[in-house]
Amino acid sequence: MVPHLITALAGPLNELEQRILDATPVIERWFRLEWMEHTPPIYTAVNIRNAGFKVAPVDTNLYPTGWHNLADDVLPLAVQAAQAAIEKICPEARNLMIVPENGTPGSFYLAGLARLQTIFRMAGLDVRFGSIDPALKKSVTYPLPDGLPVTFQPAQRIGPAALRLGLEHFNPCTILLNNALAAGAPGILEELYEQYLLPPLQAGWTVRRMSRHYQCHEEICKRFGKLLGIDPWLIHPLFAACGQIDPGTPQGAAALREETSGLLSKVRRKYKEYGIHEKPRIIIKARGHSLHLTTVRDIKDLDILLAQLPKNKEAAEGKAPLSAAPCDFLAQESVASAERIGDTEAEPVVYTIDRYVVGGYYRVQAEAAERTHYVPLAFAGNAQLPPPARETRDGGATAPNRFYLYGVVGRLALVAASYELEATDPEMLTIDDDAP
Amino acid sequence: MVPHLITALAGPLNELEQRILDATPVIERWFRLEWMEHTPPIYTAVNIRNAGFKVAPVDTNLYPTGWHNLADDVLPLAVQAAQAAIEKICPEARNLMIVPENGTPGSFYLAGLARLQTIFRMAGLDVRFGSIDPALKKSVTYPLPDGLPVTFQPAQRIGPAALRLGLEHFNPCTILLNNALAAGAPGILEELYEQYLLPPLQAGWTVRRMSRHYQCHEEICKRFGKLLGIDPWLIHPLFAACGQIDPGTPQGAAALREETSGLLSKVRRKYKEYGIHEKPRIIIKARGHSLHLTTVRDIKDLDILLAQLPKNKEAAEGKAPLSAAPCDFLAQESVASAERIGDTEAEPVVYTIDRYVVGGYYRVQAEAAERTHYVPLAFAGNAQLPPPARETRDGGATAPNRFYLYGVVGRLALVAASYELEATDPEMLTIDDDAP
Repeated sequence: MVPHLITALAGPLNELEQRILDATPVIERWFRLEWMEHTPPIYTAVNIRNAGFKVAPVDTNLYPTGWHNLADDVLPLAVQAAQAAIEKICPEARNLMIVPENGTPGSFYLAGLARLQTIFRMAGLDVRFGSIDPALKKSVTYPLPDGLPVTFQPAQRIGPAALRLGLEHFNPCTILLNNALAAGAPGILEELYEQYLLPPLQAGWTVRRMSRHYQCHEEICKRFGKLLGIDPWLIHPLFAACGQIDPGTPQGAAALREETSGLLSKVRRKYKEYGIHEKPRIIIKARGHSLHLTTVRDIKDLDILLAQLPKNKEAAEGKAPLSAAPCDFLAQESVASAERIGDTEAEPVVYTIDRYVVGGYYRVQAEAAERTHYVPLAFAGNAQLPPPARETRDGGATAPNRFYLYGVVGRLALVAASYELEATDPEMLTIDDDAP
Repeated sequence: MVPHLITALAGPLNELEQRILDATPVIERWFRLEWMEHTPPIYTAVNIRNAGFKVAPVDTNLYPTGWHNLADDVLPLAVQAAQAAIEKICPEARNLMIVPENGTPGSFYLAGLARLQTIFRMAGLDVRFGSIDPALKKSVTYPLPDGLPVTFQPAQRIGPAALRLGLEHFNPCTILLNNALAAGAPGILEELYEQYLLPPLQAGWTVRRMSRHYQCHEEICKRFGKLLGIDPWLIHPLFAACGQIDPGTPQGAAALREETSGLLSKVRRKYKEYGIHEKPRIIIKARGHSLHLTTVRDIKDLDILLAQLPKNKEAAEGKAPLSAAPCDFLAQESVASAERIGDTEAEPVVYTIDRYVVGGYYRVQAEAAERTHYVPLAFAGNAQLPPPARETRDGGATAPNRFYLYGVVGRLALVAASYELEATDPEMLTIDDDAP
């Protein structure tokens, strides 16, 4: 189910959107069947780009922040979804501990945490923050401009044999990680067999591979496309996994060049097939590397960038730490956003809790030196849920739910994340740690 | 979870309301634990009266109509709840059949059914209406002023050995009854072992006893009151079950008089305890009898009414069919509504699907010859979910959720209905058909 939120979409429904609205019952049942076999991550925020001719997820965040940017009137959906999640995970639960990011939190991050606390409190839990930052030695309270202060306490192992994680006088049933574990899972989170740790440890940044996520996504979109009779390319960004490479070495540079070049040709063919007169672009993704989020319009651009990279020898001498070590590289079709708020490009972000879409907002891209800002999406007040197709086509009184498409694309990324977490689950037999 | 809807409540939070808002996590957990042991009816509409000093349910309808009166913006909550219900009952489901009331439907009833169809369609089901009215021999389509027409088809036994109920070329997994079975369960609904029939047959009018519902409610409110440290009377209407009587006979009249008189004294004592200077009133409930919904302020009023009743002898001669047979009588404390919309008394109605509150509206009482009308409750746009008590008391920026109290009272009636349906479940050992 997807709430009917006000989007910036103003033009007529295109074919893809109409097809998806028409197929609502079929789509909802398909997701229902997926969730019989797979477990969704407890929460996600999925960044989506709508290019007009195609729509695709560009980031699937398993430690979503910014919850305060959701409109107030969609919060009951978040609470209801949180309740459904708790009922499945640990129905007797009284306490929930949220593990925040390490370091001193900014006001944006704190405001999002406070809203997350409200959601789970309303779902019937006593919610506290237990920090795993080794630098946090005692309880610290951060004031918030509009709301209650947020208190971080040092998380500790508790109970007989220190088998559980909690706080002094606070023994949670479930631990909600809002910490991407950028340095890997610390010892304090290991061997917690008596409590639920959500998302699981393999959702941490050091374990996740973008390539694995998009491989899962591709497979899912193929099946979904077949169900609806649509080309999966319309909902999936093409990509090429380069694996662990260092473009500072000749071999690494050649591999990246080859994958990017091949992908550019693939995208060009697709554009030709659909009569799209734009110039294809590829985005390089390699978290922690200086080339991360570089856009390539022509392979010559990449050649210039590669030539400018410090060579591996220098990196080894400590002069260029960013490209020092091999890094997981992904080349991906760049999906431009055709949506605008005012004159500025805007990108919808879809939030999920458990299997449910609970809201969204527009992330409005920073112009020059200005900061990114967020436009909450409220319910479309004068409108209904996606009406049956006939109603739409006959120009009936009710408007179609333009947000529905985003809810579907967001949930396809959610299904992909669930496959991804299964593939890296140490308790499952199908361990595939060598995936590129 | 309870959506934050705009209520007509304007005064300061009274003690009861504040206590309930403060205890939100405890209350939500309590309901969660109840639903581990008990199954809520698939849907209900609970009429509530808020007298200011106390709040209580006055009717728990297990075949709710009027779904179109819920505000459009709360519909995603209904759809999400419907999805959660389907996932538990029959996750593979493709089809749902709704059994409407017998007879020719009015436009109010049809508009409610159409909205119910939309809710379950959005939850991923193909929804059709299968009528069990023996008078309906072929498909009939009723137009609706603002929306798609509604088609009733004759329900029929289908499949090998006619073990299932469905339509021609339509084999539902679940059958949703929106028919109160006023004449008892017809043969066509019997022995359906392969499909889910919701609510179950014992929810029909001929099986339900108001006394059983309020007995369950009393027991639940005692436990809930203990949890919160409040007098259960503040959330429960006192009642006296008279059983199957005919007030047209001297014995029946005496029994009704005695129970009503005793109840008046009880309510008087409670009013004295709480310093309430109003005159207690008792309402007589006896579906199908001429005394149904009579209000008694003084036992002398009842004496006059009883004297006016046709005597049983006359009834036996067919002159007074309404009091001809013994009828299930209940005397109940009348809870007056202190809420007004404009100058008119308004009564909140809370809708649930599965275990979730999905919306509500105000039923505005008919004035003289005017008709009852309905005021949808939309989300309180400028407000938050029930904030923690500190925030409220410190006069923070967020308003308390005045609808939360109604969501709690509505769900206590929901729990009572679930106990009631267990008590009358023919498959359970604790059959108690002789309950008064």
